[in-house]
Amino acid sequence: MQASDRRPVNLAAIRGLALDVDGTLTDGGLWWSVAGEEAKRFCFADVMGVSLGRRAGLRIALISGEDSPLVDLYAAKLLLEDVTRGCRDKAGALRAFAERRGLQLDEICYMGDDVNDVPAMQIAGLAAAPADAHPEALAVASFISTRPGGNGAVRGLVDALLAARGLTGLDCFVQR
Amino acid sequence: MQASDRRPVNLAAIRGLALDVDGTLTDGGLWWSVAGEEAKRFCFADVMGVSLGRRAGLRIALISGEDSPLVDLYAAKLLLEDVTRGCRDKAGALRAFAERRGLQLDEICYMGDDVNDVPAMQIAGLAAAPADAHPEALAVASFISTRPGGNGAVRGLVDALLAARGLTGLDCFVQR
Amino acid sequence: MQASDRRPVNLAAIRGLALDVDGTLTDGGLWWSVAGEEAKRFCFADVMGVSLGRRAGLRIALISGEDSPLVDLYAAKLLLEDVTRGCRDKAGALRAFAERRGLQLDEICYMGDDVNDVPAMQIAGLAAAPADAHPEALAVASFISTRPGGNGAVRGLVDALLAARGLTGLDCFVQR
Amino acid sequence: MQASDRRPVNLAAIRGLALDVDGTLTDGGLWWSVAGEEAKRFCFADVMGVSLGRRAGLRIALISGEDSPLVDLYAAKLLLEDVTRGCRDKAGALRAFAERRGLQLDEICYMGDDVNDVPAMQIAGLAAAPADAHPEALAVASFISTRPGGNGAVRGLVDALLAARGLTGLDCFVQR
Repeated sequence: MQASDRRPVNLAAIRGLALDVDGTLTDGGLWWSVAGEEAKRFCFADVMGVSLGRRAGLRIALISGEDSPLVDLYAAKLLLEDVTRGCRDKAGALRAFAERRGLQLDEICYMGDDVNDVPAMQIAGLAAAPADAHPEALAVASFISTRPGGNGAVRGLVDALLAARGLTGLDCFVQR
Repeated sequence: MQASDRRPVNLAAIRGLALDVDGTLTDGGLWWSVAGEEAKRFCFADVMGVSLGRRAGLRIALISGEDSPLVDLYAAKLLLEDVTRGCRDKAGALRAFAERRGLQLDEICYMGDDVNDVPAMQIAGLAAAPADAHPEALAVASFISTRPGGNGAVRGLVDALLAARGLTGLDCFVQR
Repeated sequence: MQASDRRPVNLAAIRGLALDVDGTLTDGGLWWSVAGEEAKRFCFADVMGVSLGRRAGLRIALISGEDSPLVDLYAAKLLLEDVTRGCRDKAGALRAFAERRGLQLDEICYMGDDVNDVPAMQIAGLAAAPADAHPEALAVASFISTRPGGNGAVRGLVDALLAARGLTGLDCFVQR
Repeated sequence: MQASDRRPVNLAAIRGLALDVDGTLTDGGLWWSVAGEEAKRFCFADVMGVSLGRRAGLRIALISGEDSPLVDLYAAKLLLEDVTRGCRDKAGALRAFAERRGLQLDEICYMGDDVNDVPAMQIAGLAAAPADAHPEALAVASFISTRPGGNGAVRGLVDALLAARGLTGLDCFVQR
């Protein structure tokens, strides 16, 4: 947690988690091949984190500025139903997610890493960022993960949300 | 080695080595391409480590939670015959490996990096983890490699097992 | 900024930005597959940086020593029209860019990471380099980004150019 | 340079350079795709280093334990003619290279990162290793690069060999 003039957040009150994709669930890398193929790097620590968060009852959404089929692939692997691709207005997408699932904005955490995430971070109940987020995103974050994007940033956030409910990851894994 | 309330381990008594794959033999990364291809990153330091361990007489098994053909490819390259894929119960798989090869659990080291590895780590004679393992895995590990997963974590463990027998890697390489 | 015997630079006077590709917009990596495929790694922090710089009115060029179609792909994604591929004389390409766009060399910043970038860095109004550039490139740079190539080096430079105009990244993003 | 009981080396006397591939010219990574593709990561800093070394008159060889076509691809890109693949006896390959090119072993530097490189390192005039080499390789190295394998280790070595002749990289680049 960083010192901040934001109101204190009750982590245990968070019921929804909205995640940026590039730079948050990935390391921000964009592998391009000469043949025209595009690849990105996700990681298992975050895959496990999203899975544990879902089992603990969190409603999880992906909100990506890129219009890439990889967002849908990731959502399918993690059984996530709330997916917004090619999004220019992430704050708007966050409000739509809240409305669709009957959540208050105060009950939602948004994690993002760059300036296009800042408007959504500013209206979410909890604004979170990876350790290596852009300074303008870090400046509005109340929770800064100790791990960088695509390397456990999301997992660190989920761990904190679970801990606020008195749960470990192993608890959630075993209860499955 | 970390301070721990576990019983002291005689490294020279370890005869079997069971390895998690993602996050242990890989860096935990998951490269996904838009065309639907999936790739993972292994490393030669670990490939050499597994090879040297085999030559020194260790029985080596792979126990992976993912049901990926890459596990079989890796096993084939390293001439490993004990492979469990898509495993939900790693402790059970570890017991099966022990029974199949006539080993006691006390003679087996299990290395893993995440909460789904913890049950297997808790019953193995020696619980090991990469430097960058999840805190819940590190908490039950008696041996923590100085290198992260997919970047020499397994090699560091094999080096320690060889050293306990008075061997260097070069000894095992040359004796081939 | 590094101490230097170069004349002081007015960042706000920079109107053009010429970027090396490999090691500057990428991490210098060259992924080669056995099947003959070649891939490189760009990053979203830099993609956003180039995009914000364009919106702030900077004229942006790519000048690459490699003759790779990836340079064109990157230019197309970022709507850049000034592209030089397979370039052996980067200082010459920089002069041509200046002339083509009616810019003075003093109004152009060139960012590069290796010895083949040095001649262009020596004639540009502002010479910039990623944090992990080769020592011979660092030695002629007046601006050294805090981030390495392909991991925000270009973004850090654009942020500094925007700040010199009293702008944040969010300002440029929102104004779109 | 590390303290060592080896005889002092006159870097300016080195006329041949033999390089291991995996872990030396690459970061040791092995990307495997589910479809059966294999990829490795080289870097431009080293590509430039090999190129500058060639121009400065060094005879450069690749000696790889792996039998991969990527070794030939790399050699072709860098115009190297001395290539040994699938090599089990690197010291033997080093002697053959010396004989083929009329060089004394004392005039050759060998850079490698793992135990299978040690025998070649022990007979070369100068034994070099990347910063992240295996401890058993570091122990026999007289020159340890400040950069890790696949990320400038070879470049750092070439820079030192050039400097011993009073040359910079820019000198060699411009003289082309």
